[in-house]
Amino acid sequence: MAQVSPLAPASFPQLQPIAGVRLAAFAAGVRYAGRTDLMVAELAPGTTIAGVFTQSTMPGQPVIWCRECLPTGTVRAVVVNSGNANVFTGRAGRAVVESTAATAAALFGCDTKQVYISSTGVIGEPPPADIISAALPKIVPQLKAESWDAAARAIMTTDTFPKGATATATIAGTTVRLNGFAKGSGMIAPNMATMLAYLFTDASLPAAVLQPLLAAANERSFNSITVDGDTSTSDTVLLCATQQAKHAAITSADDPQLADFRRALGEVMTDLAKQIARDGEGAEKFVTIEVKGAESEAAARAIGLAIGNSPLVKTALAAGDANWGRIVMAVGKCGEKADRDRLSIAVGGTQIAAEGGPVPGYDEGPVAAHMAGREISISVDIGLGNGRATVWTCDLTHGYVDINGSYRS
Amino acid sequence: MAQVSPLAPASFPQLQPIAGVRLAAFAAGVRYAGRTDLMVAELAPGTTIAGVFTQSTMPGQPVIWCRECLPTGTVRAVVVNSGNANVFTGRAGRAVVESTAATAAALFGCDTKQVYISSTGVIGEPPPADIISAALPKIVPQLKAESWDAAARAIMTTDTFPKGATATATIAGTTVRLNGFAKGSGMIAPNMATMLAYLFTDASLPAAVLQPLLAAANERSFNSITVDGDTSTSDTVLLCATQQAKHAAITSADDPQLADFRRALGEVMTDLAKQIARDGEGAEKFVTIEVKGAESEAAARAIGLAIGNSPLVKTALAAGDANWGRIVMAVGKCGEKADRDRLSIAVGGTQIAAEGGPVPGYDEGPVAAHMAGREISISVDIGLGNGRATVWTCDLTHGYVDINGSYRS
Repeated sequence: MAQVSPLAPASFPQLQPIAGVRLAAFAAGVRYAGRTDLMVAELAPGTTIAGVFTQSTMPGQPVIWCRECLPTGTVRAVVVNSGNANVFTGRAGRAVVESTAATAAALFGCDTKQVYISSTGVIGEPPPADIISAALPKIVPQLKAESWDAAARAIMTTDTFPKGATATATIAGTTVRLNGFAKGSGMIAPNMATMLAYLFTDASLPAAVLQPLLAAANERSFNSITVDGDTSTSDTVLLCATQQAKHAAITSADDPQLADFRRALGEVMTDLAKQIARDGEGAEKFVTIEVKGAESEAAARAIGLAIGNSPLVKTALAAGDANWGRIVMAVGKCGEKADRDRLSIAVGGTQIAAEGGPVPGYDEGPVAAHMAGREISISVDIGLGNGRATVWTCDLTHGYVDINGSYRS
Repeated sequence: MAQVSPLAPASFPQLQPIAGVRLAAFAAGVRYAGRTDLMVAELAPGTTIAGVFTQSTMPGQPVIWCRECLPTGTVRAVVVNSGNANVFTGRAGRAVVESTAATAAALFGCDTKQVYISSTGVIGEPPPADIISAALPKIVPQLKAESWDAAARAIMTTDTFPKGATATATIAGTTVRLNGFAKGSGMIAPNMATMLAYLFTDASLPAAVLQPLLAAANERSFNSITVDGDTSTSDTVLLCATQQAKHAAITSADDPQLADFRRALGEVMTDLAKQIARDGEGAEKFVTIEVKGAESEAAARAIGLAIGNSPLVKTALAAGDANWGRIVMAVGKCGEKADRDRLSIAVGGTQIAAEGGPVPGYDEGPVAAHMAGREISISVDIGLGNGRATVWTCDLTHGYVDINGSYRS
C-alpha cells in the first residue's frame, strides 16, 4: 500500500446514519489480498435515484447497466467491486453484471433493474462473477447503518485514503441529511461525470427532481477536477434519496424550497471532488485555479482545466517553480477566447502578470514561498467577460510515473 | 547539457549546399554560456516564402511579426535566437523584433518585412535587443553555404541533438534540393504548426504555390507528433525557395509536375517531426501509433493524438507494460466516433484486442519483448470507415519530470 497522500484530510469525517441506508464491506478476493474489495449499500423500498456517467465512447458494462436501470427512478441496492473494472469485456462482462444483479435482487427481494453496479480497477478482464455472487449472501447479514468508513475503503484502488463528506439541509422546514463517499486517484478528467461517487439522503424527492440537481452540482464539483486529463470508462455518480424525511412534497427541481438542499449537495460533492484531487496519483501539492473574466462559465472552466491538465504547468508546480509563462501557454492553447493584452495572472495572491506582460518589478519572494507550500492558488483574469469557474488539481511528480508504470503488475 | 536521447539518429545528415542559401551560427550570449544561440540564414534576392504558425491565442511577438511579413511572399533573412522566447512581453517584446529586423535589413540591404524572426526559450522575458543587434554585424562575415549542422545546433533549447533532413525531387525534369532543420523537445503538441522548423529549396516556385504545399505536408508531419500535449506559443515552420533551379514555371500547387516535390517535402518534414518526438523531454522510447478504420483522416489523427497524449498510456509505455486497457480509455475519451464492439488493438504486430474484448488466449510474451525495446508500434483499427493517420510520440518518464521541474532555474 502506498503512503497516504500528504494532502489527505486529518481523518475520515463522522458520517451519521441516514434512515433507509445500510452498508457493508467485504473481502471477497476479487483481485486484492488482505483488504476489502466489495461494497453493498441497501436502500429502503421507495428510494429514488439519479445518476451521471462517463461520456466515454467506451463505457464499462456497469455504466451501460446503470443507464438501463435509471429510467425506473428507483434503487434497492448498489454493488461495487474494486480490483477489476468491467470495461472492454464484451459478452463475458455483460454476464457478470447480469448475474450480480440477479443474485442481489434475490437477496433483497427486488427487481434486477433496482440493483446498480460499479466496477473499478484494471480494464479488459471481467470481474469474477462466481466470487462476487458467492460473497453477496455473506455480506447481507453484515449490513449496518454506520459502515460509511468501511464502505468508502472497499471501493479504493490506487487511492491512499477513503473519501467521505456530509452535510445537512433544510427542506420546507425539515432537516435532511446528505452523506457521500467517493474513490479516484488516477484516470481523472471527468467528462460530465467522474470516478465513482455515491451520495445518500433521506430527503423525500422524486427521481425527476434529483436528476437536474445532481447534474448541476456535478458541473461545479467532479467536472471541475483533473489529475491527468485521462477520462475513465467507468465514471459514475449516484444520488439515492430514501424518502424517510417527512417534508412537504417537492415536484420540481426549480422549487425555491430546494435552495438549501442544492447548497448542501454542492458542498458535499465539491468536498469529495477536492479530496480526489488531493489523492491524485503521486500528488505532493493541491492546486486551486480560479479563472474569471472569461466569456462564460464553461469557457472559464475549460481554461482552468487546460491549465490544470498541462504537464508543463504541473511539473513546474511539483518543483515549486512559479513558471507563469506556462500558464500563458495553457490559456493560449485551449482555444477559448482570450486576449493577450488583457490577461492577468496571480499566484498566492501576488500579481505576476498583467496586460500582456510581467508586472514591472514584481517580487518573486512571496510567490516562491507560496509555491514551496502544500496548497497552491493560481488566479487568472481573462479580462473579457463575467464567466468564472474554479478548478482543482494536483502536481505531476515522479510518484505519478512510478505508480502508473507499475499499477498493473 | 543533458545526455543525448537514446532515440537520436546516429549522426546529423549530410546536407549539401542549396544555391541562394548561406547560414551562420553565433554565440551571442542571449542567455546560455559556452554555446551558440543566434542563427542567421541569408536568402538570395527573389527568394519566395511560405509559413505556418501556432494557433495559440497567446502567440509570441516573432510569430505576429512573421504573419505580417508573409503577404509580401519574399524573404532575404531568417534570424533565430534561443534562450529567450519573446512571448507575453508586450511593447518591449515588439521593440526587440523591430530593432532586430531593422538591423538585419540594413546589413542585407532589404526591406524590414523581408526579415523573418523566431525566438525560443523562456516565456515572459524579452530577448536582449542590444545583444542581438550587436551580434548581427559579426555574423554576416561568417555566412557559409555549408553551415547546416551549426545552424541546427544554435536554435536548440532542451533538445539533446540537432535535427536535420534532406531530399531531392524532380520538377519538370530538373532536380531540386530540399534541406530542413528543426528544434523541439518539450511543449510539443503542434496545432496547425509546430516548434521551429526551417526548410530551404532551390526550387523556382512562387509563394502562392509554396503555401498550400507546406500546409498540406504540415498536417501529416509536425501536426502528427506530440510530446506532452502542450502547444507552444512560438511554433513556426518556414519554407524558403531561392528560385535558383532552372525549371519550367509552375503557377499552381495542383500542377501534376509537383508530385515528386510534394513527396520530398513530406519526407523531409516527417523526418524532422519524428526527430522531435525522438528528442521528447526524457524520452526513452519512440512510439508509432497507426490508426485506421476511422470516420476520416482527421478523426484518425485525433484518436492517435489522444492515445499519444494520454499520461496513463505514456507511463505504461515507459514501464514496458502492454496496458492496452489505457488505449481503450484514450479512444473512448477523445470524442471521435468509435464502437466498442469493432475496436481492435495490436502492439508490435500482435493482435491483443478485437471486437470489444481481449483476443482469447493471446500470448503476452512477444508483446512484452516488443515493449522492452526502444521502438514501439501500436495499431488501432476503429472498424468504422476508411480514415487513417499515423502519429508519433514518446513515453513519459522521470526524465520529463526532472527536466521540467528545473528548466527555468
